[in-house]
Amino acid sequence: MRPTLPLPAEFSLIARHFRPLAGPGALDLGDDAAVFAPPPGRELVVAADAIVAGVHFLPDDPPDLIAKKLLRTNLSDLAAMGAVPLGYLMTVSVPRSTPDTWFAGFAAGLAADQAEFGVFLLGGDTTSTPGPMSLSLTILGHVAPGAALCRTGAREGDGLWVSGTVGDGALGLLAARGEIADPDGYLADRYRLPRPRLALGQAVVGIAHAGMDVSDGLVQDSGHLCRAGGVGCVIEAAGVPLSPAARAAGRLTLCLTGGDDYELLLAVPPEAEPALTEAAARVGTPVTRIGSFQAGPPQVTVCAADGTPIPIAVGGWSHFDGQGSAVDPVP
Amino acid sequence: MRPTLPLPAEFSLIARHFRPLAGPGALDLGDDAAVFAPPPGRELVVAADAIVAGVHFLPDDPPDLIAKKLLRTNLSDLAAMGAVPLGYLMTVSVPRSTPDTWFAGFAAGLAADQAEFGVFLLGGDTTSTPGPMSLSLTILGHVAPGAALCRTGAREGDGLWVSGTVGDGALGLLAARGEIADPDGYLADRYRLPRPRLALGQAVVGIAHAGMDVSDGLVQDSGHLCRAGGVGCVIEAAGVPLSPAARAAGRLTLCLTGGDDYELLLAVPPEAEPALTEAAARVGTPVTRIGSFQAGPPQVTVCAADGTPIPIAVGGWSHFDGQGSAVDPVP
Repeated sequence: MRPTLPLPAEFSLIARHFRPLAGPGALDLGDDAAVFAPPPGRELVVAADAIVAGVHFLPDDPPDLIAKKLLRTNLSDLAAMGAVPLGYLMTVSVPRSTPDTWFAGFAAGLAADQAEFGVFLLGGDTTSTPGPMSLSLTILGHVAPGAALCRTGAREGDGLWVSGTVGDGALGLLAARGEIADPDGYLADRYRLPRPRLALGQAVVGIAHAGMDVSDGLVQDSGHLCRAGGVGCVIEAAGVPLSPAARAAGRLTLCLTGGDDYELLLAVPPEAEPALTEAAARVGTPVTRIGSFQAGPPQVTVCAADGTPIPIAVGGWSHFDGQGSAVDPVP
Repeated sequence: MRPTLPLPAEFSLIARHFRPLAGPGALDLGDDAAVFAPPPGRELVVAADAIVAGVHFLPDDPPDLIAKKLLRTNLSDLAAMGAVPLGYLMTVSVPRSTPDTWFAGFAAGLAADQAEFGVFLLGGDTTSTPGPMSLSLTILGHVAPGAALCRTGAREGDGLWVSGTVGDGALGLLAARGEIADPDGYLADRYRLPRPRLALGQAVVGIAHAGMDVSDGLVQDSGHLCRAGGVGCVIEAAGVPLSPAARAAGRLTLCLTGGDDYELLLAVPPEAEPALTEAAARVGTPVTRIGSFQAGPPQVTVCAADGTPIPIAVGGWSHFDGQGSAVDPVP
């Protein structure tokens, strides 16, 4: 007897939905690995993020938006380094009952974003899980040698700048859950569909002293820049850019501490401010000065317009904050 | 009030357990991405695999062995391409109740294998999940331009060769579950701790026409080489190398179709056989000729010593074989 070796469903699924996304070097996703020549003379920039149903997205979110969020949160990491996207690998662990239509929608979301951001699928793995959907993506990009924008480098006197608006992501999660009003769906859309600031990140290389993307909340992420630079910072709450929808929601603390913004947070010396605003205008991404770095311990102070400190109870989002975990928070 | 911004437990956990694993370019895992210069003049080889508790490993497996299996299954993909390992990114989604000792053991396993295989952690993500532990790893390696060993290339007349022994992984899973005898623990160890054949993979570049690692079962993976090469193959069952423990277990079909071998499967033309055996001896990895490729449809025939075909009912392991899935197996 000759076993005819029909392709099992796992391979069929990959062939139908993921192979069309494969880029040069991916060997049609049919080999053990992808092989490609990195751009000569450039440094590689690599990052990985995982998202889990019920933690990072809602299980009934549209699959194309889940795909885009997975890809875009990783693209945002490249944006934060000033890098140019190259390609990505992805692992998809989903319940066996996941219908084919889910995969079709997921792949359609990736295809749309591949076209928008100029990236291709290089490889990955599809497995079953008895638990919630668990997705992981590794993004590869490149920068000129020594040009990557890092978190270290903020200095006393630098301005603290942020792109776009802050707080829409955190409010959007509440809106998506039906917990706050969101008449035109603006907030929920901002939660579900990050806008990675790739053009801005690339444009501020050589202008900003330090940079990162805002994913864990403005206050906490500003603290990261403080710690990495060995400086403190003051955020002027009244200067933090809010969308009209966020302003209407009136939840300032949530806007300052909630995550999922995927805006860029930059430390820019005063003499580079004209170059920054010129670069931001050129790429069409608004930037706003929201505070400054100061000598002192790596602390973040949020102030009202009259300089009065505003108490901020929550620093941001962490996955292991002692709730049921044996892990102790350590300063 | 100045929030003092203690590092939340997620960052503390990363700092204590994962930062010591970080290699050059990882920026101490403190930035949005890693930045490194790829080896000049080499092509990059990248692959990603995910493993889920209860699917790919047993939830109470020792954490150092889970870590090593995660890393080694990916290293096996590099071995299959003839690539030299460079570094890896990893995402770890674990229940909030995961104790610190688990992370310590997991990191210790990675540290040991980093030393053994010359790789470093480049980045990743740690998140919580309400479901089973879900781990994903992306491996990066490099090869000389055009030298990667691919699945395509097997030709009529090539011998089918395999490294080491086949079936120990599948039997080891049964042993780990207590379903078969395993007096000295040899089989369970082979299941839990793959031996990626990196030296052999690098040594057969230019010798083998095609290659891959055996992860889904010898018969199914031989079928992959057949399909990629547009040829058929015959496996002589009596020639398949079995360990003494596997021979004692007497489960030939399982050995031929079970997964988790992580041996190399190679298509080698007759004139290159002396070079193959010399290379295998040099790196200290046994190789065995188990059959040959033939003209005809991409089918795998398993034969007894007298040439009689042996019926093989199961082709191998797939995650989506229609059990509860809306995905249809398509030839």
